[in-house]
Amino acid sequence: MNFQIILRFTGILIFFLGVAMAPPLGVSFLLKDDCTQSLLLSMAITCSLGILLFVFTRNQKEKHLNHRDGVAIVTLGWMMAGLVGALPYLFSGTLPDFTNACFESISGFTTTGASVVTDIESLPEGILLWRSLTQWLGGMGIIVLSIAILPFLGIGGMQLYKAEIPSPVVDKLKPRISETARILWKIYLLITLLQVLLLLAGGMNLFDSVCHAFCTMPTGGFSTKNTSLAHYNSAYFDFVIVIFMLLAGINFSLHYRLLKGDLKIFGKDAECRVFLILVGAFILLVTLDIYGDLYSSLFQAFRYAAFQVSSIITTTGFVSADYEKWPHFSQLILLICMFLGAMAGSTGGGIKTVRLILMVKHSYQQIFRIIHPHAVTTVKLGGQAVSEDVLSSVWGFFFLYMGLFVIAFLAMASMGLDYISAISSVAATIGNIGPGLGIVGPIRNYLEIPTAGKWVLNACMLLGRLEIYTVIVLLAPEYWRK
Amino acid sequence: MNFQIILRFTGILIFFLGVAMAPPLGVSFLLKDDCTQSLLLSMAITCSLGILLFVFTRNQKEKHLNHRDGVAIVTLGWMMAGLVGALPYLFSGTLPDFTNACFESISGFTTTGASVVTDIESLPEGILLWRSLTQWLGGMGIIVLSIAILPFLGIGGMQLYKAEIPSPVVDKLKPRISETARILWKIYLLITLLQVLLLLAGGMNLFDSVCHAFCTMPTGGFSTKNTSLAHYNSAYFDFVIVIFMLLAGINFSLHYRLLKGDLKIFGKDAECRVFLILVGAFILLVTLDIYGDLYSSLFQAFRYAAFQVSSIITTTGFVSADYEKWPHFSQLILLICMFLGAMAGSTGGGIKTVRLILMVKHSYQQIFRIIHPHAVTTVKLGGQAVSEDVLSSVWGFFFLYMGLFVIAFLAMASMGLDYISAISSVAATIGNIGPGLGIVGPIRNYLEIPTAGKWVLNACMLLGRLEIYTVIVLLAPEYWRK
Repeated sequence: MNFQIILRFTGILIFFLGVAMAPPLGVSFLLKDDCTQSLLLSMAITCSLGILLFVFTRNQKEKHLNHRDGVAIVTLGWMMAGLVGALPYLFSGTLPDFTNACFESISGFTTTGASVVTDIESLPEGILLWRSLTQWLGGMGIIVLSIAILPFLGIGGMQLYKAEIPSPVVDKLKPRISETARILWKIYLLITLLQVLLLLAGGMNLFDSVCHAFCTMPTGGFSTKNTSLAHYNSAYFDFVIVIFMLLAGINFSLHYRLLKGDLKIFGKDAECRVFLILVGAFILLVTLDIYGDLYSSLFQAFRYAAFQVSSIITTTGFVSADYEKWPHFSQLILLICMFLGAMAGSTGGGIKTVRLILMVKHSYQQIFRIIHPHAVTTVKLGGQAVSEDVLSSVWGFFFLYMGLFVIAFLAMASMGLDYISAISSVAATIGNIGPGLGIVGPIRNYLEIPTAGKWVLNACMLLGRLEIYTVIVLLAPEYWRK
Repeated sequence: MNFQIILRFTGILIFFLGVAMAPPLGVSFLLKDDCTQSLLLSMAITCSLGILLFVFTRNQKEKHLNHRDGVAIVTLGWMMAGLVGALPYLFSGTLPDFTNACFESISGFTTTGASVVTDIESLPEGILLWRSLTQWLGGMGIIVLSIAILPFLGIGGMQLYKAEIPSPVVDKLKPRISETARILWKIYLLITLLQVLLLLAGGMNLFDSVCHAFCTMPTGGFSTKNTSLAHYNSAYFDFVIVIFMLLAGINFSLHYRLLKGDLKIFGKDAECRVFLILVGAFILLVTLDIYGDLYSSLFQAFRYAAFQVSSIITTTGFVSADYEKWPHFSQLILLICMFLGAMAGSTGGGIKTVRLILMVKHSYQQIFRIIHPHAVTTVKLGGQAVSEDVLSSVWGFFFLYMGLFVIAFLAMASMGLDYISAISSVAATIGNIGPGLGIVGPIRNYLEIPTAGKWVLNACMLLGRLEIYTVIVLLAPEYWRK
């Protein structure tokens, strides 16, 4: 453990977060909303804190970062982002309660999208932009984290791509994380820009277009409207956002290969194929389930099903219909989507498609082994054998995910939440989705959750976002031994 | 696949089930209840069916049973037991509906204890005895299945004991299943007898003592009383049954070693230690949670907590208090117990302690590997290394268990059950417990479940009872290939 270097890196991160408060400050100043001073104060404090941490830690360039330092930097970085990101909410009086401000901020940076703000439309523009920006920055962080940093630390769904995809992206990236990061951020920026243009073309104003695009790419799901996308009631916006949510749920290295001219890459990639088939199947099931009594036109049923399934499975969390009025079957499909999540290497949360595929294949292998006890079998993905180490890591992740889910669920239920609110609030935060069912349902928010419960959910958001291992490894006694 | 031999074995099993109807028939005759004729008819049909199957299949003694035949015999055997066991209910008019009769019978033979009978006390004694006897026979079958047959087929929690316990029991047993079976059944009979004596000593009449003992040893949970053990409201009966439920939840080869003089075996065995610690911890948590408002005396709180935790975690399902009136926290502890189950090699269902231990250890190993990427580590149990094959089999089981749970839950909820009833009815049948929460709660039963739902739960009971693999392997295309 090298505390100096960990704090120094965290300082740099905090400083940049302070700098990132400039655009909301600018917007606030231009539009003369009443949060200019609060944003300036937040920015000053954040930048100063970052500089202080940087200045008062020694430069130890000669020392290499080891695994342990990496894990500590990532976890501490996200926690600190959650804290300094809360300052604008606190100072502007938007969320004067410390817990609420932290909840909104952590929900932002973890790209969850669970909110404690009841009247979103009454917020000053500067705050609204900061709220969306936390998600966009969180999403950027996640892309780099999940494709470049976590696999390097031996964590995360992308770990197996080390062996599996002999793509130029991964090859190039491994030795130079900074270069990878640049490529990925360009793609991220490009897709965001494209979405802004398409939303503008549909008649959404510039501010809302930017804010919604900022919350789509990171599969975040904060909206500038109280009723989320239902506010616009526009099939055009719904479908534009469906497409961009799905893009955001796809591994970003596939986007890179697509841009390099490999037009069939989405169909060729084993994980992507299964992900798109799952999305299609769930949309079909929900469409058929809600068509009839609720939506008399098949097109309307398809539209709302496609939006809500895409929104939940990519862990975005935008809402275009009050799905709590849907039949149980459809609600449970959405609950299952909360656990599944999108692809590894995307901005989405949850268990992720690649893990599901590996678990299904490995389980089937066990059945096969009973029939042919002496056959030698390996689990393959995209034609390549997957190592026992990767499989063990996937099972460990799944078990920890379910274990944390059960513990958090127990905690929430013992605070008096009804079962379905307790289940879905935990599933929707550990999976970084946002809205759940019951008191945290699509037309309600997380304000009613008791304070202790909000901190349980804060922990869930961080754990889920950082692929659990990154956080939990810090709790192992071995981590702290010399 | 060798259909002749499979049917022949099933025929033998059915014949013996017919013979097993003799005691209820005798009781019915002596007590002159009104089901003598129905029992006689059931017995005649069952025995005839068994004889027919035996006579019309060729004797192929020279052929060895292979893995596939073993799996088919076990699954078909339990299904046929469920069918012929339903005859007494049908013919006596107790449960004139085919689905209900099958449900009660399958619930019996799988030692689940979920009932569709509302007024149990109005049933004729012959039927009550048959109902209890199905559980006792099912429990006998399970002991032999889980200790002698499934590990031989490469299935089940006991699989790892092949390598792990160098005990005389396992050594002796492997080559001669019949001899093992005799030893285990003697233990089973002995403990049952002891329980009957202790219940008699407390003032329970002979008939009820026998019936309750018949349903304790197999962790079944059918009672002859409408309100289960709450009927007696006796601390003595409660504690006697707690002790025998826990004994039934412990691996039967440990009982053998205990009887051979190894008095510290429960503490020495790694799985047993964890099982007893879990039971103790859950009892403590529930006692503290229900003490106060609900039970003003600490002793009463302890008594009801001990009974209900033991009943659910051993997957017995007796009820001594309406735990639906308990706080959420305690209810959820019970729900967790439904999934955990007791020890491998016992009559209990659920995921089982040994699998939990291995999953926790293997997951922790993954965390350790992040900290020390180059360390070579193995998962150990009781000082012995556990092979990758066993770990894979455990993960496969867990995934299939959870997968089936989700699918069945989806099916039940889409039939209109509220979420908590849907969750707990599936958890309580796949884990072979019996009572759940909501409409299948402790003071209600499974009668209200729609017919299709009853068949879903029938499948859950069978799948859970036969360690999932045994049934699901029959659905694999490879199974049917030459």
